[in-house]
Amino acid sequence: MNREELINQIKSKRSFLCIGLDADIKKIPTHLLEFEDPIFEFNKQIIDATKDLCVAYKPNIAFYESMGVSGWNSLQKTLDYIPKDIFTIADAKRGDIGNTSNMYARAFFENMNFDSVTVAPYMGSDSVTPFLEFKDKWAIVLALTSNKGGLDFQKTEDKNGKQLFEQVLETSKQWGTDENMMYVVGATRAEQLSEIREIIPNHFLLVPGVGAQGGNVQDVAKYGMNADCGLLVNSSRGIIYAGIGTDFAEKAKVEAQKLQQEMAVILAEAGIK
Amino acid sequence: MNREELINQIKSKRSFLCIGLDADIKKIPTHLLEFEDPIFEFNKQIIDATKDLCVAYKPNIAFYESMGVSGWNSLQKTLDYIPKDIFTIADAKRGDIGNTSNMYARAFFENMNFDSVTVAPYMGSDSVTPFLEFKDKWAIVLALTSNKGGLDFQKTEDKNGKQLFEQVLETSKQWGTDENMMYVVGATRAEQLSEIREIIPNHFLLVPGVGAQGGNVQDVAKYGMNADCGLLVNSSRGIIYAGIGTDFAEKAKVEAQKLQQEMAVILAEAGIK
Repeated sequence: MNREELINQIKSKRSFLCIGLDADIKKIPTHLLEFEDPIFEFNKQIIDATKDLCVAYKPNIAFYESMGVSGWNSLQKTLDYIPKDIFTIADAKRGDIGNTSNMYARAFFENMNFDSVTVAPYMGSDSVTPFLEFKDKWAIVLALTSNKGGLDFQKTEDKNGKQLFEQVLETSKQWGTDENMMYVVGATRAEQLSEIREIIPNHFLLVPGVGAQGGNVQDVAKYGMNADCGLLVNSSRGIIYAGIGTDFAEKAKVEAQKLQQEMAVILAEAGIK
Repeated sequence: MNREELINQIKSKRSFLCIGLDADIKKIPTHLLEFEDPIFEFNKQIIDATKDLCVAYKPNIAFYESMGVSGWNSLQKTLDYIPKDIFTIADAKRGDIGNTSNMYARAFFENMNFDSVTVAPYMGSDSVTPFLEFKDKWAIVLALTSNKGGLDFQKTEDKNGKQLFEQVLETSKQWGTDENMMYVVGATRAEQLSEIREIIPNHFLLVPGVGAQGGNVQDVAKYGMNADCGLLVNSSRGIIYAGIGTDFAEKAKVEAQKLQQEMAVILAEAGIK
C-alpha cells in the first residue's frame, strides 16, 4: 500500500487506529478452543467487528511464532482474511546483516504479502535498507519505544547532547523516504513527539502504548500529528481483550469505536478532510 | 547446555568452532533439490561431516523463515538431528517488550529446544531479561557487529567518551550472569576485543565474521580469549558453501578441519587442557 492510499483511508474512515492482533491462546475466550484454529477464529471475529473502525492491523509475530508451524498457519490465514484496503504491519522487530535482512524482507513482503515490517536499528544501514527495496512496502524503524527498557539506551546523549533515538532518526531518514519508512515512537513518550517532528516532519509514526501501557491519543495527536495526519496509533490488549465471553468481538468493537470517535474529532479539529 | 558442559566440549574437541547453518535453497548443490526436504538434507550432510570438529551450530533463522512453513519444518528437523552434546544457537536477533520477548523465548527454548538465541539490545532490559529465565538457556546479546552498518550507531560516544556498545555491555551484564548471557562481537572488530574483555572478562563471546567477512581466528584469540577459552568463533559461508558438487560435505569438512586445527594450536599455546 502506498502513502496516498493510506492517507485516503484515514480520511474516509475518520480514524488513524491500528489494532494489534496479539492473539494469545491463554487469553482468548475459552469457547473458541473448540474451533479447529482458535487463533484464526479469534482474529476473524475481531476483524469482522472492527474493520470499519481502523486503518491498520498489526499482528505481533512473537505470538504466532511461539506456537510453531500452527502459529504460522494461523498468521497466514489471518493476513489473507484482512481486507486488502487495510494496511498490515508485521510487528517482528527484525534486523540483521544485509543478506539476512533481505531474507526477512522476502519472508514478510513476498511469502506473506505484509505491507510493512518493524525493524530494529542497532545494526545500522545494511540491516534496514533491504526492507526498502520492495515497491509500496515499508520498513517501520524503532526510534523511541514505550517500554521501561526503552530508557536504557535510547535516550543516552552523545557529545553534542544528541540522544540515541535522535541519531537514529537523523541517520536513518537518509536511507529511504517518507514513502517507504515510518518510525515507532511510544505513546508513553508523547512529550518527545514535537522534537521528533522537527527531525522528521513528514514521516508516518506508528505509536504503540495507548491503553494498557498508559499513553493517550490526545497527547499523541497534539505533539505528533502533521498535515497528512502522519500517525498510526496502536491499541492491542485494550481492544482485543475487552471481553472474554462469547460477546468478546462486540466488546472489542465498543472499545475500537471509542478510539475512532476520539480520532474523528481530532481529525476534524485539525482540518484533515 | 550449561557453561561447564560447553567448556568441557571445547577442551575435548580442541575446537571453539561454531558452524553457521545458513542454508539457502538458491545456493545449495542442485542435486539436493531431488530430495523431499533439500534444506534438511543439506544440513544433515554438513552435520555428519563436521560434528566432531565444531562445538556449536548456528542456524540463521531468516533463511528458514523466508521459506514459510516448510522452512520451519526444515529447521525443526535440523535441530532434532544435531547431537545433544553440541551447543545450538538460534541466530534470530529478536527483542521486544517484556511479554513479547517472553513469547520469543518460549518459541526458541520450549517449542524448539535451542540452547540460545541472539537478541538485539535497542529496547533495553525488559527485551532481554525474559530470555534469562530458562534453566541452562542463554541470551546472546548484540554488542559490536561485524557488518558495515555496525558503525552507524554502535561506536557513537556519549558525553564521557563511552561508546554505545560499551554502554550496552556495562548495563546489560547486570541483567544476568556469565552462565546465561553471551555477547556478539564481530571478528572484523578484533582490535576492540581487549577493551571488551576489560568490561566482561568472563562471558563467552560469539564471534561471527571469520572467513567471508574478513576476520581471522588468530586476532580474535589474541585479543579475546580468556582462561576458559570464552570464545565461539563462527564461520558460515566459508564452510558450508566450500563445494557445490556432490562432494560438498567433504569440502565443508576440509574447511572446518583447517579452522579446528588452527584452534587446537591456539588452545594448546594458551594452556587450555
